[in-house]
Amino acid sequence: MLADRLARDLYTELSKLPFVDPHSHIDPRSAPARSLDDILGYHYYTELSHSAGMPQDCLAADFEPKERVRTLLSWLDRIDNTAQYRWFIEICRSFLGFKADRVAASDTDFLWSQAEKRMSQPTWEEQVLKQTNVEKIFLTNDFDDSLEGFDTARYVPCLRTDDLVFKLDDPKVRERLAKATGVEPTDAGMLRQAIGTLFQHFVRKGAKACAISLPPGFAPTKIDETVLSQGLLDLARGEATSSIKALVSWGVFWMLAEHCQEFDLPFDLMIGVNRKVYAGGVFQGQDLFDQRTSLIQYADLFNAFAKVLFPISVLTSSQNQELVSYAWIFPNVIVNGHWWYSNIPTFIQRDLTARLQAVPKTKIIGYYSDAYKLEFILPKFDMFRQLLAKTLADDFVRTGSCTESQAVSLGQQVLCANSKAIFRV
Amino acid sequence: MLADRLARDLYTELSKLPFVDPHSHIDPRSAPARSLDDILGYHYYTELSHSAGMPQDCLAADFEPKERVRTLLSWLDRIDNTAQYRWFIEICRSFLGFKADRVAASDTDFLWSQAEKRMSQPTWEEQVLKQTNVEKIFLTNDFDDSLEGFDTARYVPCLRTDDLVFKLDDPKVRERLAKATGVEPTDAGMLRQAIGTLFQHFVRKGAKACAISLPPGFAPTKIDETVLSQGLLDLARGEATSSIKALVSWGVFWMLAEHCQEFDLPFDLMIGVNRKVYAGGVFQGQDLFDQRTSLIQYADLFNAFAKVLFPISVLTSSQNQELVSYAWIFPNVIVNGHWWYSNIPTFIQRDLTARLQAVPKTKIIGYYSDAYKLEFILPKFDMFRQLLAKTLADDFVRTGSCTESQAVSLGQQVLCANSKAIFRV
Amino acid sequence: MLADRLARDLYTELSKLPFVDPHSHIDPRSAPARSLDDILGYHYYTELSHSAGMPQDCLAADFEPKERVRTLLSWLDRIDNTAQYRWFIEICRSFLGFKADRVAASDTDFLWSQAEKRMSQPTWEEQVLKQTNVEKIFLTNDFDDSLEGFDTARYVPCLRTDDLVFKLDDPKVRERLAKATGVEPTDAGMLRQAIGTLFQHFVRKGAKACAISLPPGFAPTKIDETVLSQGLLDLARGEATSSIKALVSWGVFWMLAEHCQEFDLPFDLMIGVNRKVYAGGVFQGQDLFDQRTSLIQYADLFNAFAKVLFPISVLTSSQNQELVSYAWIFPNVIVNGHWWYSNIPTFIQRDLTARLQAVPKTKIIGYYSDAYKLEFILPKFDMFRQLLAKTLADDFVRTGSCTESQAVSLGQQVLCANSKAIFRV
Repeated sequence: MLADRLARDLYTELSKLPFVDPHSHIDPRSAPARSLDDILGYHYYTELSHSAGMPQDCLAADFEPKERVRTLLSWLDRIDNTAQYRWFIEICRSFLGFKADRVAASDTDFLWSQAEKRMSQPTWEEQVLKQTNVEKIFLTNDFDDSLEGFDTARYVPCLRTDDLVFKLDDPKVRERLAKATGVEPTDAGMLRQAIGTLFQHFVRKGAKACAISLPPGFAPTKIDETVLSQGLLDLARGEATSSIKALVSWGVFWMLAEHCQEFDLPFDLMIGVNRKVYAGGVFQGQDLFDQRTSLIQYADLFNAFAKVLFPISVLTSSQNQELVSYAWIFPNVIVNGHWWYSNIPTFIQRDLTARLQAVPKTKIIGYYSDAYKLEFILPKFDMFRQLLAKTLADDFVRTGSCTESQAVSLGQQVLCANSKAIFRV
Repeated sequence: MLADRLARDLYTELSKLPFVDPHSHIDPRSAPARSLDDILGYHYYTELSHSAGMPQDCLAADFEPKERVRTLLSWLDRIDNTAQYRWFIEICRSFLGFKADRVAASDTDFLWSQAEKRMSQPTWEEQVLKQTNVEKIFLTNDFDDSLEGFDTARYVPCLRTDDLVFKLDDPKVRERLAKATGVEPTDAGMLRQAIGTLFQHFVRKGAKACAISLPPGFAPTKIDETVLSQGLLDLARGEATSSIKALVSWGVFWMLAEHCQEFDLPFDLMIGVNRKVYAGGVFQGQDLFDQRTSLIQYADLFNAFAKVLFPISVLTSSQNQELVSYAWIFPNVIVNGHWWYSNIPTFIQRDLTARLQAVPKTKIIGYYSDAYKLEFILPKFDMFRQLLAKTLADDFVRTGSCTESQAVSLGQQVLCANSKAIFRV
Repeated sequence: MLADRLARDLYTELSKLPFVDPHSHIDPRSAPARSLDDILGYHYYTELSHSAGMPQDCLAADFEPKERVRTLLSWLDRIDNTAQYRWFIEICRSFLGFKADRVAASDTDFLWSQAEKRMSQPTWEEQVLKQTNVEKIFLTNDFDDSLEGFDTARYVPCLRTDDLVFKLDDPKVRERLAKATGVEPTDAGMLRQAIGTLFQHFVRKGAKACAISLPPGFAPTKIDETVLSQGLLDLARGEATSSIKALVSWGVFWMLAEHCQEFDLPFDLMIGVNRKVYAGGVFQGQDLFDQRTSLIQYADLFNAFAKVLFPISVLTSSQNQELVSYAWIFPNVIVNGHWWYSNIPTFIQRDLTARLQAVPKTKIIGYYSDAYKLEFILPKFDMFRQLLAKTLADDFVRTGSCTESQAVSLGQQVLCANSKAIFRV
């Protein structure tokens, strides 16, 4: 893929190294795809096809899966310029015996049957993992996940807390919390007890991080316990105004940070997403952002929890400069991957270069897949490795800052060693 | 111009293709320049020269035109580093028989007489169009333009609506509207009738878009008709506060979007300009921006008008990431050209790369000239073609995403095919 | 350092040219470092090492300096990827006879003794200046600096005004002002008299600029004199609310601009820093920013003081596009250097390219060192020269906009000539 010789050499070395994937949405009980429908059902393909004009009827649950795939494939030529399309082609080539560089609806039968044949093999999961060369994969677990039924050494649990922070006004969420912990979160003390129980459960099961995604306007601060108790009461009575809900969000969030401190867990913050901006969009293809956000909103948090590491993802390349600067100053701010709308080669290249030039190398977590199915880890990390190799070649080796072998070490650090050190796996 | 062989080959192929210019300020009844004064009177040259120290007296209407040109040429060496200067040099070389790479005041006589001789030829317009290889040029027409007296197949009318949305408090604008439509916009119903009349007129005359430029703080929403009626009444009485004016702006804007839907016209939004920031600046050289703006301000609009296509221009490269993301999610958001302060090679390169990597290729309108005189279309599109060729070479062909011929097709799509499909010309 | 031949040739030419450093924190009475501790005590090393995990105890005033250096050197491997690390290596190689490309704690004795031997030479200052090839160095002088005891032709005084604008509520600052001027700033008239006295003193001593750093939220406007007088009274009584303090800040700032106009001094604005964001950080390693700021906040100022030149530094690369655009429109807005968190190769490259493509070449001040010790001017300017050479090679010579010799002239202009013309030295 890389035309430049030096970059290609570095890429070759980096490709030999096993790595850690510190954030995914993999279901560890059903990690690989079971069909081509699982691959093309990824929201990147449904949302881009829809954006390019595809009606949504083929996405209905009762639509015949193979015909859904055929429909999607017939729209993909409209997005064959995109990075996301390249991931799909690489999956087809790496895992499905496909040889070409473009797909069409006429490839449906071949790809479908290849997928059917291969994915039904009992060793498919092992094959994919081996070919991918990934050592450990972090999960995104609901707070009431039993964490049973999978190998937590390979699939590392991670406590996802969006529901607790932003949906505690929903009786079903409070019920789930009560059921998972035996505690009704009716005041600050009870909530603390419930959260403590969750952390105990997760840590006992090998969880290595707490995580949350946050809207651009979020600016957490410490909330007085009696105020929080009053807010929780209003919530329980269904009487909470939007200000009360915001205040409870801050209180719960702050309490989670306290538990990260107590339980010695990094707290992954994924900053900047507004949910359901395109209300009529496809599943998981409705969220967008407001570039007007700042890490200054988290200054209180970073100051208050000096012992908690905060691996941070931002949604825009302009906020990347803030992230670089905050990680350069705050010991507990870690730069983490290239998230969602910034997970595009040109933004990765720019953001990565700035990080490598200005953040201590021990504080850079290079990349995570954010994948829902195992097959996506390979093409995504491969895209990143190529960009990393190019950056190391042009901005480090060629400028005389590094030898080639130092560049490979630096690459290894951001691809693997830092994740292991920061999350202690 | 391009040092790289592959980029040069792609550029050569792209240069052979006719293209559409989907936004300009060309006066179709006087499309080419009539003198060198028309060329150097372009605000880019007057404002940059003034910014570099030139007093404004030479810009007075009664200043002798050839001496104005001599004065401007004497200041241009201070901006000979700029992209705008390159456009001028290319005009001199392409259309005026100039051979050098720099101009000075001492070139005034030669250039003036060449321009005089050539521009007075009856076939000048045809010569420029042919050499430029442009098929269709979109206009910016005042709402009360008769649209008579020119070939609307070549010069495509476009309803510009800034006055309706932002200046309806000006009695002269209301008068113009009444005169053009026979309707006084005294309440929401009358306004709707007037706007309907305008759309009928424009569509009958071959208009292919409605367009507007918007300040960074604009955040339109649907306004209740009775509230809008009250606002229009206040406006008519000269009693409107600035809040009432803002509210009327939203109401008129929303009504325009409704008509775009009814008349099946795309609605070009050019987002981000504050008018008259430098009050003492030269004509058309007074407007600047506030980077603190977000496309989230238009989420209601995009959701409400799923059937209306919104080709969107933004003013900053950081907002380009928003535009890329919104176009990737919303089917009705189209990315449109490189506007004004972002129409600079380095910003075009960055913004274009992100668009080509993340937006469906059918939703990218590559470029428009924004020109006031025909002669500017060639150098501006040529700048863009070079940058497009470079991007296609480095980020598509060299990365293995595309063959050369696929790259040329992609280039053709963003240079021409998409404009034709989106605006239905 | 530069792999590309053309860039290297341009760099070689640029390196021969003497230059002006238009902003530093050099103490002219003790300009070079006196020990390696002075070099590694630079906040970039202490803050990055701390950010990478170094406890702060070694930074205590009574910690043995050589052991502090050993400690810092033992942490530097964690930041050996950064641009700041390269500056240190280049200092070791240029001034301390060091040969390697990496340092370790084991180099402490060698480097310490080399520094001791060389820095104690009576001609050290001259040696450093000569090797650096810098002609004039601008200072940052407190308003009550005597400006005695140094050569103001080499070390150019500059009136730093942060204390006056933002700390006039501090009795010690008011006392210092009274002591320096013989005037108590108890009302607007007295304040004007005091400031006039300061300007007279500074200009008489050869000051060539007034300067200030400003928080991202600052939006100055003209304050009525009686309102300012009331605010100053509240301040003197210790009764000023934060709104009153903000208002006094605006009033003082505006009065400084009036004096810049009267005394014909450029007013350097360094826009965007929030102080003490990381309260527990190392000395000078506590400040960060909020990207949500705009130059529109200064529109009133630029309009009101058409005769005052405002060399402006911004803290983010996204605001650089605003700066480029404002400098392209406002005759009195000058782009100035690459400040702090933007003083990183990738941001310099992007920002510089945009400036060179869109701002009149006479209005671009390429770079300043911001250095505290003379030894840093060389590696910082050298980094800039390399990036400048690369930009000129790729975006000017290779695109055909410039010949090589025109490129060198353009480089000379932004490295030296513009500073001399703008600051009249």
